[in-house]
Amino acid sequence: MFTVKVYVLRLGHRPGRDKRITTHVGLTARAFGADGFILADVSDERVLEKLREACRRWGKRDFHLECGVNGVKYIKEWRKAGGVAVHLTMYGLHLDDVVDEIGRSSKDILVIVGASKVPRIVYELADYNVAVGHQPHSEVAALAVFLDRLFRGKELHFIFPDAELCIVPSPKGKKVAKCGEKKNK
Amino acid sequence: MFTVKVYVLRLGHRPGRDKRITTHVGLTARAFGADGFILADVSDERVLEKLREACRRWGKRDFHLECGVNGVKYIKEWRKAGGVAVHLTMYGLHLDDVVDEIGRSSKDILVIVGASKVPRIVYELADYNVAVGHQPHSEVAALAVFLDRLFRGKELHFIFPDAELCIVPSPKGKKVAKCGEKKNK
Repeated sequence: MFTVKVYVLRLGHRPGRDKRITTHVGLTARAFGADGFILADVSDERVLEKLREACRRWGKRDFHLECGVNGVKYIKEWRKAGGVAVHLTMYGLHLDDVVDEIGRSSKDILVIVGASKVPRIVYELADYNVAVGHQPHSEVAALAVFLDRLFRGKELHFIFPDAELCIVPSPKGKKVAKCGEKKNK
Repeated sequence: MFTVKVYVLRLGHRPGRDKRITTHVGLTARAFGADGFILADVSDERVLEKLREACRRWGKRDFHLECGVNGVKYIKEWRKAGGVAVHLTMYGLHLDDVVDEIGRSSKDILVIVGASKVPRIVYELADYNVAVGHQPHSEVAALAVFLDRLFRGKELHFIFPDAELCIVPSPKGKKVAKCGEKKNK
């Protein structure tokens, strides 16, 4: 459906404080249609293991996962290879003013989300600094809404053929099926 | 623009582990157009203080904040007063199948987001169990996308007249103005 590659780059995190937020960023990247998630500048295998486990159970085992890379170098190389770098920040240009242009570019997209203070150079290297609204909120919320607009809501219907488990939508309960079972009904 | 009241109810949290996620849920509620945020079943004034600080600096000082209420009782009372309860869960009915109906109901909306395991009774009490996609991700992402669809993206342009600080959108930098200054330009 979408031929370009979309990776999410999380810039660092403070291990005690940010671990769960980083996990949420990674899960959101996977669920909202990105093809990979990279945790830059720190190594935290526990986060990657959580994400691998989600991919094993719910599918998308080819989701690219990496940690410990140099964030700034990664952005530079992504751009050198012809991709665009999109940094989500409340200080940037409004999502509604740039998302169509980004989607039309037909280039691989690196979506950058910060943790604590983002170095100035990231603002300069980014092809787009994009604000999902100009209010303080959450990198998880910003990433979800950015990807939802980029993929025009279709990502919420993606089916991963290699999933072990699938949800059977239910008005009141919790119904989970082995994926084969669901497909056969 | 939207005459019904929308509150977000966070069901409990494990203080060490979930504090920052709960703060992100509260900030997302505020930024994406909700009128209030309630942390149920635990009291954590540090979280509320973070949210109050955001309201002081960025506006919306009438944002309702509360913690320590009984979650199940709160849901029951909300419904008794004529409001609808919407529980966000990956096991529910797909967002796209129910969000228009919820928006058209003209009733006050309580959006419920869980922390760890959500008690069965919440699924039963909720008028709608809504899945923002049927993949595991994040309550922060789910809340943001639910509110974004409910308010049809208009919430990302809300201006809070009582804000001290405003962002001046910028392609590369970080520009913040005292709100009066920005309005006078």
